[in-house]
Amino acid sequence: MSRVIGFGDLLVHLSPPGYQRLMQADHFDVNYTGAEANTLVSLALFGVDTQFVTRLPDNLVTDCALNNLRRYRVGVDHVVLGGDRIGVYYLEKGASQRPSRLVYDRKFTSLATTQPGDLDWERIFEGATHFHFTGITPALGPQLPAICQEACQAAHRHGMLVSCDLNYRSALWNLDTARRVMGELAPEVDILIGNEEDPEKLLGVKPQNTDVSRGQLDKAAYEEVAAVLTGRYSFKAVAFTLRQSLSASDNIWSGMLYQDGQVFRSREYAIHLVDRVGGGDAFSAGLLYGMIQGYDPQHTVDFAAAASCLKQTMEQDFGLSYPEEVEALLRDGGAGRIQR
Amino acid sequence: MSRVIGFGDLLVHLSPPGYQRLMQADHFDVNYTGAEANTLVSLALFGVDTQFVTRLPDNLVTDCALNNLRRYRVGVDHVVLGGDRIGVYYLEKGASQRPSRLVYDRKFTSLATTQPGDLDWERIFEGATHFHFTGITPALGPQLPAICQEACQAAHRHGMLVSCDLNYRSALWNLDTARRVMGELAPEVDILIGNEEDPEKLLGVKPQNTDVSRGQLDKAAYEEVAAVLTGRYSFKAVAFTLRQSLSASDNIWSGMLYQDGQVFRSREYAIHLVDRVGGGDAFSAGLLYGMIQGYDPQHTVDFAAAASCLKQTMEQDFGLSYPEEVEALLRDGGAGRIQR
Amino acid sequence: MSRVIGFGDLLVHLSPPGYQRLMQADHFDVNYTGAEANTLVSLALFGVDTQFVTRLPDNLVTDCALNNLRRYRVGVDHVVLGGDRIGVYYLEKGASQRPSRLVYDRKFTSLATTQPGDLDWERIFEGATHFHFTGITPALGPQLPAICQEACQAAHRHGMLVSCDLNYRSALWNLDTARRVMGELAPEVDILIGNEEDPEKLLGVKPQNTDVSRGQLDKAAYEEVAAVLTGRYSFKAVAFTLRQSLSASDNIWSGMLYQDGQVFRSREYAIHLVDRVGGGDAFSAGLLYGMIQGYDPQHTVDFAAAASCLKQTMEQDFGLSYPEEVEALLRDGGAGRIQR
Amino acid sequence: MSRVIGFGDLLVHLSPPGYQRLMQADHFDVNYTGAEANTLVSLALFGVDTQFVTRLPDNLVTDCALNNLRRYRVGVDHVVLGGDRIGVYYLEKGASQRPSRLVYDRKFTSLATTQPGDLDWERIFEGATHFHFTGITPALGPQLPAICQEACQAAHRHGMLVSCDLNYRSALWNLDTARRVMGELAPEVDILIGNEEDPEKLLGVKPQNTDVSRGQLDKAAYEEVAAVLTGRYSFKAVAFTLRQSLSASDNIWSGMLYQDGQVFRSREYAIHLVDRVGGGDAFSAGLLYGMIQGYDPQHTVDFAAAASCLKQTMEQDFGLSYPEEVEALLRDGGAGRIQR
Amino acid sequence: MSRVIGFGDLLVHLSPPGYQRLMQADHFDVNYTGAEANTLVSLALFGVDTQFVTRLPDNLVTDCALNNLRRYRVGVDHVVLGGDRIGVYYLEKGASQRPSRLVYDRKFTSLATTQPGDLDWERIFEGATHFHFTGITPALGPQLPAICQEACQAAHRHGMLVSCDLNYRSALWNLDTARRVMGELAPEVDILIGNEEDPEKLLGVKPQNTDVSRGQLDKAAYEEVAAVLTGRYSFKAVAFTLRQSLSASDNIWSGMLYQDGQVFRSREYAIHLVDRVGGGDAFSAGLLYGMIQGYDPQHTVDFAAAASCLKQTMEQDFGLSYPEEVEALLRDGGAGRIQR
Amino acid sequence: MSRVIGFGDLLVHLSPPGYQRLMQADHFDVNYTGAEANTLVSLALFGVDTQFVTRLPDNLVTDCALNNLRRYRVGVDHVVLGGDRIGVYYLEKGASQRPSRLVYDRKFTSLATTQPGDLDWERIFEGATHFHFTGITPALGPQLPAICQEACQAAHRHGMLVSCDLNYRSALWNLDTARRVMGELAPEVDILIGNEEDPEKLLGVKPQNTDVSRGQLDKAAYEEVAAVLTGRYSFKAVAFTLRQSLSASDNIWSGMLYQDGQVFRSREYAIHLVDRVGGGDAFSAGLLYGMIQGYDPQHTVDFAAAASCLKQTMEQDFGLSYPEEVEALLRDGGAGRIQR
Repeated sequence: MSRVIGFGDLLVHLSPPGYQRLMQADHFDVNYTGAEANTLVSLALFGVDTQFVTRLPDNLVTDCALNNLRRYRVGVDHVVLGGDRIGVYYLEKGASQRPSRLVYDRKFTSLATTQPGDLDWERIFEGATHFHFTGITPALGPQLPAICQEACQAAHRHGMLVSCDLNYRSALWNLDTARRVMGELAPEVDILIGNEEDPEKLLGVKPQNTDVSRGQLDKAAYEEVAAVLTGRYSFKAVAFTLRQSLSASDNIWSGMLYQDGQVFRSREYAIHLVDRVGGGDAFSAGLLYGMIQGYDPQHTVDFAAAASCLKQTMEQDFGLSYPEEVEALLRDGGAGRIQR
Repeated sequence: MSRVIGFGDLLVHLSPPGYQRLMQADHFDVNYTGAEANTLVSLALFGVDTQFVTRLPDNLVTDCALNNLRRYRVGVDHVVLGGDRIGVYYLEKGASQRPSRLVYDRKFTSLATTQPGDLDWERIFEGATHFHFTGITPALGPQLPAICQEACQAAHRHGMLVSCDLNYRSALWNLDTARRVMGELAPEVDILIGNEEDPEKLLGVKPQNTDVSRGQLDKAAYEEVAAVLTGRYSFKAVAFTLRQSLSASDNIWSGMLYQDGQVFRSREYAIHLVDRVGGGDAFSAGLLYGMIQGYDPQHTVDFAAAASCLKQTMEQDFGLSYPEEVEALLRDGGAGRIQR
Repeated sequence: MSRVIGFGDLLVHLSPPGYQRLMQADHFDVNYTGAEANTLVSLALFGVDTQFVTRLPDNLVTDCALNNLRRYRVGVDHVVLGGDRIGVYYLEKGASQRPSRLVYDRKFTSLATTQPGDLDWERIFEGATHFHFTGITPALGPQLPAICQEACQAAHRHGMLVSCDLNYRSALWNLDTARRVMGELAPEVDILIGNEEDPEKLLGVKPQNTDVSRGQLDKAAYEEVAAVLTGRYSFKAVAFTLRQSLSASDNIWSGMLYQDGQVFRSREYAIHLVDRVGGGDAFSAGLLYGMIQGYDPQHTVDFAAAASCLKQTMEQDFGLSYPEEVEALLRDGGAGRIQR
Repeated sequence: MSRVIGFGDLLVHLSPPGYQRLMQADHFDVNYTGAEANTLVSLALFGVDTQFVTRLPDNLVTDCALNNLRRYRVGVDHVVLGGDRIGVYYLEKGASQRPSRLVYDRKFTSLATTQPGDLDWERIFEGATHFHFTGITPALGPQLPAICQEACQAAHRHGMLVSCDLNYRSALWNLDTARRVMGELAPEVDILIGNEEDPEKLLGVKPQNTDVSRGQLDKAAYEEVAAVLTGRYSFKAVAFTLRQSLSASDNIWSGMLYQDGQVFRSREYAIHLVDRVGGGDAFSAGLLYGMIQGYDPQHTVDFAAAASCLKQTMEQDFGLSYPEEVEALLRDGGAGRIQR
Repeated sequence: MSRVIGFGDLLVHLSPPGYQRLMQADHFDVNYTGAEANTLVSLALFGVDTQFVTRLPDNLVTDCALNNLRRYRVGVDHVVLGGDRIGVYYLEKGASQRPSRLVYDRKFTSLATTQPGDLDWERIFEGATHFHFTGITPALGPQLPAICQEACQAAHRHGMLVSCDLNYRSALWNLDTARRVMGELAPEVDILIGNEEDPEKLLGVKPQNTDVSRGQLDKAAYEEVAAVLTGRYSFKAVAFTLRQSLSASDNIWSGMLYQDGQVFRSREYAIHLVDRVGGGDAFSAGLLYGMIQGYDPQHTVDFAAAASCLKQTMEQDFGLSYPEEVEALLRDGGAGRIQR
Repeated sequence: MSRVIGFGDLLVHLSPPGYQRLMQADHFDVNYTGAEANTLVSLALFGVDTQFVTRLPDNLVTDCALNNLRRYRVGVDHVVLGGDRIGVYYLEKGASQRPSRLVYDRKFTSLATTQPGDLDWERIFEGATHFHFTGITPALGPQLPAICQEACQAAHRHGMLVSCDLNYRSALWNLDTARRVMGELAPEVDILIGNEEDPEKLLGVKPQNTDVSRGQLDKAAYEEVAAVLTGRYSFKAVAFTLRQSLSASDNIWSGMLYQDGQVFRSREYAIHLVDRVGGGDAFSAGLLYGMIQGYDPQHTVDFAAAASCLKQTMEQDFGLSYPEEVEALLRDGGAGRIQR
């Protein structure tokens, strides 16, 4: 029986209804999300035992945030209460040529001010098999890189697999710091996950013939990137999501998995987006699920890409699919006939 | 002056707002719909006199459901009150690769438990010219096939035309029963309507070169199907809607009408869907309206397909178009300029 | 320092949420808009000083309408209170093959019944540099053509530039009157703006090889149109927006600017529409802004078309973009990646 | 079998959700109401055959308004299409010390510009038994007093009873005109209805010891008023609603009926208001229903006051009660236990 | 460490927003509730370990219902999937003199058709200390009385305390059956809970001087009732909630507890209701919590009544209070100052 | 011509719709408010020239907040951009016995980290006549007391009047610090405003016979308090609001003004609350307006209390009344008849 521990932040996610700009809104849809929490929610719906680890202030809003994870079956037994605030994150959803705009208000949060020792990894990792975090977590505060190191090392002591989605966020730290910290954490990682931009930005390995901001990707180049990274850090597996952004409404999306010197590519999806946020987090969930289930690498990356595709056809950040729904997409190819 | 009698169920239709999954919703949009009722609503907006026949429990929710038909000018003079419950139907709307999901809660309804004799067809059919039902109605309960037979025969005694949309729903009955019952009802039908799947499923006539679940249709094959069915059952007319489901957001849609040994094809529409549910019901309405108006077969099928296309650009199940709006689509080709 | 004076109507704009038909709605989204006001809102967000001039009744709804302009930094110092009513305008948004439908209730409004002398142009134009109106304003009431004349002449006395978007609305006046009035106003105009239909309809100059209602435009022909009009009326600049309506959901959109005998074409945008209303008004704003900033003609028309494209990816009629967002579209080409 | 004809205006009723001021609202709840239509809706739910007569413009908003009556079973067979506009009415609901505020935009409506002869009373009154209008209708336009006269006289020719709720609205006409017109119409009325202010305002008969604006009513004085009015105009019955406004949230409410020289008083209700608009209209409906059912005067006024009380505990203007709900209030006294 | 097992139904609870009648609603607020589940939710927020036991169909709506319990920390480990349907329950909220109206659609549900043996009480009760059900559960289907008996006996074998809220629902069964069944279950109950109507209705012991439907209660009489019942069935404790319904908006509310021959009365609350449904369920939760915490009987009944009072100031059926909030009400007396 | 400068914080105010608890909400109503901003909004609607001074981060949410002030005519010319964040404030509205709960997230805001010199008071105060702040502002950060001192002294140099509402918030600072700081600021204040708790808490002068938390106030004692304070600090005027909290739904409210050795008491209002937040801020606005208008002290305090009463019958924190509406309450006494 597997149990996945996720470590990261949980934020109040505020967004105007539909395609309103922030400026137009008198109401916000509210959700409580975060990259790692998103991944755990998907895993929990796949049937995997999960625990989300973070630090949050002791107030009524934290209750809302934790209840939102409980609702989707994510364990919160190890959440620590303390500190000043829960982060807030305002997102206005783009459309067509208009990009989504995001305002972060996540400085000084309870997680950002966590100190080494606040989290008891030995107890947290009892009975656990996987530890998952993203590059957002070490970016949040000065002690977080050390805490992530500590967690990874404890995880390995418990014989757990460590997965990390690079998830570079330029609003949270500058590139130099990010590269240094992620370079130090990379050796602790077994399964590396990234999007089309991350490997170059964070680990300095640039795919050829690729201009991400204009939506031009050379998929073959990413195989080379994975091979180089595996050589450098001895990853057990490297997986990338590859997004070609045609517009804020339409994206081309696929995933690839590099394992044991071989590359496995998922089908490519032309997605008419409902909400693209959380697509990468659902991919991580699908990937971990495939590995936990013992799927072969091809089915694993297919499952991950399909789970991630489905996420992007849903409102909000969570990938709320059951395994049989993901399999149905793999089987039917996304023609979208009503399931009566 | 024509009057169309529709016979079928009326359900509480609950759906999460927008593209939320059921799991995410704290509010449901509520509507009161049913295949035959949907057709009558469109006919009523076309200006045709209509009466909807069903059986519903005597409570405040039934009032809501009937008021919803009154609002759109459908007559409910012959609705019978009695039995235990009105059916409920939960629909989460799909998008892109994510299919719509539907949960039926329509067992034990007042209509499902109707007994022969509960409905006084002689009185209902006074002054009526058309009787319309779909393959859903006989699927609802053990007495319903007999009641449909009874209704068809009474309709013919009144010199009425009988139309039936095959509308196979695998969630309501198994294929064997469905085939047997629909095979027994088919000889009572004058105007047969079906979608791209129905003829094979319910009447066992398979179109060539067609894989419906993957969105591949050979339109020519449906002419052959219509000819075979007409030969077997002596239909006055056979009409099909042909949906190619590119995704849950985009469909190709057209209709065809086979009459007097000739086939008439409508224009084909590439629809960016608002809500596809009820598309077939609006097609039936357009077809009956064309026949009632005495349109030639080409204009009839064009009108039906256009009415049906417009439905799919509207929220909820009703096809709320005026005849001049349908004609405007035929005339302008759907470029969608604002009608100021 | 520039200051733009806009003159026109401000209406209560009522629309059903999402893609509901009017008939289905129990709630309306409410906004307070008008062609010239829309242009001023965009200009105000670009940082330009603006004043909106109109006449409205003295009641609580007028307060709502004016507050809506104040909210976006548009000045309302010269609005005159008086008369009977503020206009109302019901809009149901179309989708795919279903066109938007609009019901005007704007007769007898306070602006429509304005008399010459009600507006003190000398005072209004103190310190102003640009006067902008559209062809809607003279269409509203019998005295409005004369008042527009009076305003244009006063503007010229103040050394201001006069811009006019032709904006023909067949629901407001008949074509003969419109042509006569606009023909008389054209000599007072410095910067003429129009959509793909306006020049033929209002000024009688037809582009070749063009069938607007079917979405077929010969862009080269519009250069010829601009040249002819410039020859006839000595415009300082002529700009057109060119919309090819593929459907109510997807449009091709571009702009052109004819100045000093040369034509400048913007990039062409394939827009997946959120709300197309106000697209032309945002184009006018972008054009005036480019001229005020002293951009070269190519950058001016590029900026105008981009501002207008962005507007059409937003809800409601206002083009709520900052200049840096417009520039970002010009730079990035609309791939719509999230701006974190 | 009775049939009640109501004659009056139907307006777009726009109101901010909850207790928002107009100034705060981005959404309006929309309903389509009018004093006489409100009364007919209640009567229709009581099971009485009704027809609503008015004149409305031929557009999509009129369809909404008429559908809203159809929904609640009110007949609209005699509605005439024509003229320029449907009226609009903005209402912000008060609370506690804050009064409700109302903005009328009902000049120049299709009904206000109706001409004698536009309505064919002979045909309208075929098979009808009661004619109901309020003092709002003659206030709407210069021809309306004459049209009301014409209607009353036609009604009497058909042996119908004429009821009129005085319903003085100072925003629609000045007091002198109102008094002259209502004085001329009063002799045509059989059943006179008014609120605590109307008899003094419109017919010049002042109740003693009463200061309506401060919520002080001497109920006995209204018996005297009824007697004087009956003496002057030979009414068959006179009924008053007596509202003591403690605040915008709490009112004391009762009704009285004067008939054959006797006074009958209803129970007095302390109502915690949901929406008081339409309270008088529901009272009229209850009164007419009691008379149609042949209730004795005491039960008639009790039923009318109870129906009216219930209306004021509902959102919007319609009194949506079934007769058994009204009787339950009379029987149980309003303790409000859940009806499971 | 205590663990409370609740056994009962979980329904889809649909209600129009605010004070709309069902007839007016285009949207429903949706919640997933049931008497026993409501009690467990309150207990879970008090910090008590809980498990909810029921049988539900295997579909997406059941997921919603269970997630709603997970959200508030209620365990659903023993829920059995199977059967045809989840019940539905429509509630329109009353106000002032207008009572709430409720439409049950809970026949043929998965729980109603549960068979003895479907639920494995031995496993369910492992580690549990309390078993709670209400009189609704045995009313739901023919096998439910036997299943409740079976559960009570198993509970006693596990040394657990059995509590039962009588909760008579006339819509679910007739009084004779109810009395017989509850009479047979009463000897299995340790802690009996009821409202002001239940003891007379279900156990035939009538309080003196009391007319519940008119809101007149003689509190002393309930002490006598408790004594008689205790004598007859040897209850360890008997508790009543006493509601005086002034109107659908205002109630007087208190509780009493009879234990060891002594009566303990709570403070009496004059509640301006937000939603009274679930008030009794929160009382049960407060009572069990007081007993689990070892509070003295006076504090126990005070806590229960305060928890129940707070519930009635909240939307929906759940009593969402923390223990410190309940204690604050006991301490501060409900003056309602903002807790900043 | 007067101009009032307000100095304080502007927060994102998030609240669940209606009476939902935070825990239940999927949507938040959003507003942008703050004590001093609330006062300025009321003053702006009274027609007074205003400028709001604060420091906010340079992002899209700040735009929303400032637009919200512009909408209601408050000037924001002197707002300084910089720092990390705008504060957030979650409010769940109480009802009956359930108190409102508030979660502050206002540490580390741009205002809290303002440094002396960031605000150029000389320029800000040009042409200004009044400076208003509350006890919240100095509580926000370590430099704020000094900045307030600096502002007060600059105001006096400009011959302005300084008003301060004590507004003690225990969540923002401890009592000792608060007392020290406010004691140091008090000598700079001309017009002191406080609620029933503030004078004792912040200035150590306790009213006799008063237990605020239980809603017991001895009004006479506040005259004594005002006299003592005036003696100590030489205030030009002292005003108190006196709230007796019967419950979270019903409050008794009045104001008093002590000036030139005389006390003036307003009428007392029994308010059925819509939203009590902002009541004190509206009182301050009314008080300043009365003084600006030169009303006598009795009319001034009457106006202030009436404005404040009206605020509490409105949604959200702003007191959105026009002067004529306040006067109407003074004249009519709050019987709440509809203003047609």
